Amino acid sequence: MEKQKNIMDFDTVAFDEEQDAVIIIDQTKLPGKTELIALKTAQEIWDAIYLLKVRGAPAIGVTAALGIYMLSNRIETEDFATFHAEFVKMKEYLDSSRPTAVNLSWALKRMENTALRAGREEGKSVAEVKEILHKEALRIREEDIEVCRKIGEYGLTLVKPGDGILTHCNAGQLATVKYGTATAPIYLGQEKGYHFKVFADETRPLLQGARLTAYELHSSGVDVTVICDNMSANVMSKGLVQAVFVGCDRVAANGDTANKIGTSVVAMVAKYYGVPVYVCAPTSTIDMATPTGKEIHIEERPAEEVTEMWYKERMAPEGVKVYNPAFDVTDNELIAGIVTEYGIARAPYTESLRKIMEKKS
Amino acid sequence: MEKQKNIMDFDTVAFDEEQDAVIIIDQTKLPGKTELIALKTAQEIWDAIYLLKVRGAPAIGVTAALGIYMLSNRIETEDFATFHAEFVKMKEYLDSSRPTAVNLSWALKRMENTALRAGREEGKSVAEVKEILHKEALRIREEDIEVCRKIGEYGLTLVKPGDGILTHCNAGQLATVKYGTATAPIYLGQEKGYHFKVFADETRPLLQGARLTAYELHSSGVDVTVICDNMSANVMSKGLVQAVFVGCDRVAANGDTANKIGTSVVAMVAKYYGVPVYVCAPTSTIDMATPTGKEIHIEERPAEEVTEMWYKERMAPEGVKVYNPAFDVTDNELIAGIVTEYGIARAPYTESLRKIMEKKS
Repeated sequence: MEKQKNIMDFDTVAFDEEQDAVIIIDQTKLPGKTELIALKTAQEIWDAIYLLKVRGAPAIGVTAALGIYMLSNRIETEDFATFHAEFVKMKEYLDSSRPTAVNLSWALKRMENTALRAGREEGKSVAEVKEILHKEALRIREEDIEVCRKIGEYGLTLVKPGDGILTHCNAGQLATVKYGTATAPIYLGQEKGYHFKVFADETRPLLQGARLTAYELHSSGVDVTVICDNMSANVMSKGLVQAVFVGCDRVAANGDTANKIGTSVVAMVAKYYGVPVYVCAPTSTIDMATPTGKEIHIEERPAEEVTEMWYKERMAPEGVKVYNPAFDVTDNELIAGIVTEYGIARAPYTESLRKIMEKKS
Repeated sequence: MEKQKNIMDFDTVAFDEEQDAVIIIDQTKLPGKTELIALKTAQEIWDAIYLLKVRGAPAIGVTAALGIYMLSNRIETEDFATFHAEFVKMKEYLDSSRPTAVNLSWALKRMENTALRAGREEGKSVAEVKEILHKEALRIREEDIEVCRKIGEYGLTLVKPGDGILTHCNAGQLATVKYGTATAPIYLGQEKGYHFKVFADETRPLLQGARLTAYELHSSGVDVTVICDNMSANVMSKGLVQAVFVGCDRVAANGDTANKIGTSVVAMVAKYYGVPVYVCAPTSTIDMATPTGKEIHIEERPAEEVTEMWYKERMAPEGVKVYNPAFDVTDNELIAGIVTEYGIARAPYTESLRKIMEKKS
């Protein structure tokens, strides 16, 4: 078994030309087993996304892009209209695997637009369209790596060798193709011999911190210590944390940030101890159409995730009420900086985020 | 099965004269099963304390007092010196079950002093000493109930009907004989029809909130909702919490309070949202000899509690570091009041706690 395998030796999502398959790490087997699986059919891709074998918005988007290329490449027709009709069917099928993941529909839409531009507007042959889709899927994948690397480079300027870094949930390599977002500064620092000491919140109820973040950092040789979510004050009170890096699900125009439940708790504790909190945000997660965090809808998930999912037996009395919000919103005043692939936004965010988004366009 | 049994119908620790046994609720079976067990031998008492069938400093102290009475009552001698020698052997045996629980040795010492005063100083017969020990053990038990009830009455003045109350860990009836400390205002309010809405932090890693607090409040008809420890900010941001009540393991002379890991996190979140935090503290936990929280030693516990104890499988990668402190210290500035059986201490605590302790002596 491959427990000792260094996660930096392979990517979370890749395409294998020889096998004609999308290759992913099966995240449902982590941390016990590191297993690469080959997705060869539409159903296998759909299942992998639905069953969280691949997770994290960027990684899902890339899987879908590579998947729709793989499937459309097998369509046997010379007629673009027929090709497109088949393409749309597959696209809609894949899109139904996790309807709330923005990157999923974004990546599929981008692939469709690429096909339409080449086949309908530019009159390219179906064979040529397939080759263009191939390149576009690989480009989406490369862009993801590049965005994470840029975030890592900017993030790395915020810390120094030997620093203690606390992170929450998994905004790691496993949520992207490579580097992750919140973990990108950690991996780039690792390459430079920075010897960070990382604390990974276990992140209840789904334990992405203990299962995934601790796994990927540990397997790549980073000094990582798992703590329960309620231990952040203890480690910060001892001066063991110089910076907090977290990912995000959506950043509002004023810098308020929705991220995994408990992120705002970490931010309040960090504020109390004067530790800066940095949100690592690809610009794809910055939503200028949402003015503040108040407008962000917070998903509630099933009680069983809290009371029984991982356990040998039920851990709360039968019939008791459970509240299980999946995210919380961190007020912009608790955030020291928002690290994007175009640079670091600082307060006031309404202005700095607008400038970042201008660089993008 | 007795799942529907109302916990307020019986006590956590009691003495059954007919059976000549100490009766406890087996807390290791909660929340799945409500089982009263009779402890009839020294070994059964020792095991019950060691295996956490009975837990919570006050409940352990009462169990030891009732237990040492039960055992000493069976010593067959008319000679006090012989009686005392046997008594000390049993006392030392029971005392070894959980050496760090202050109330355990305190209760046993108090019972021994009672025996010595009656048998040695006052020259009472062994039969008379046994009767005096009987009364003293029951008095220790009654005092515990009375202290909790008083804390409940003072605590109840701090909230109003319909309030949302958040609590952490289990400073409940199950940690005492009746009422608990942090839960005492909740139970007294329940008797008056106050309809509190209680949020119980699950309290990782040992889950005392989900397993014990939710169990006892739910079984007594209190409206209780289990949340993960990292959800406190979410519920407070929605205005669902008007007060936080927590217990404590030790209060320093300046009001700094050591309590279950995560208590200080709750206090920081509460501070951010302007929610008052009340520490419910029997004066037995106020340690005027410890100047500040900095002098309180924080116990570290095994990594397995975090990574595997309750789980179907290991929840963090093999070999990863884990940090598992059992307590943290909440700074006095985060505490709105310390509720004792002699009244409520307010900042500055160095002064107010001294006055409380003067009332006691």
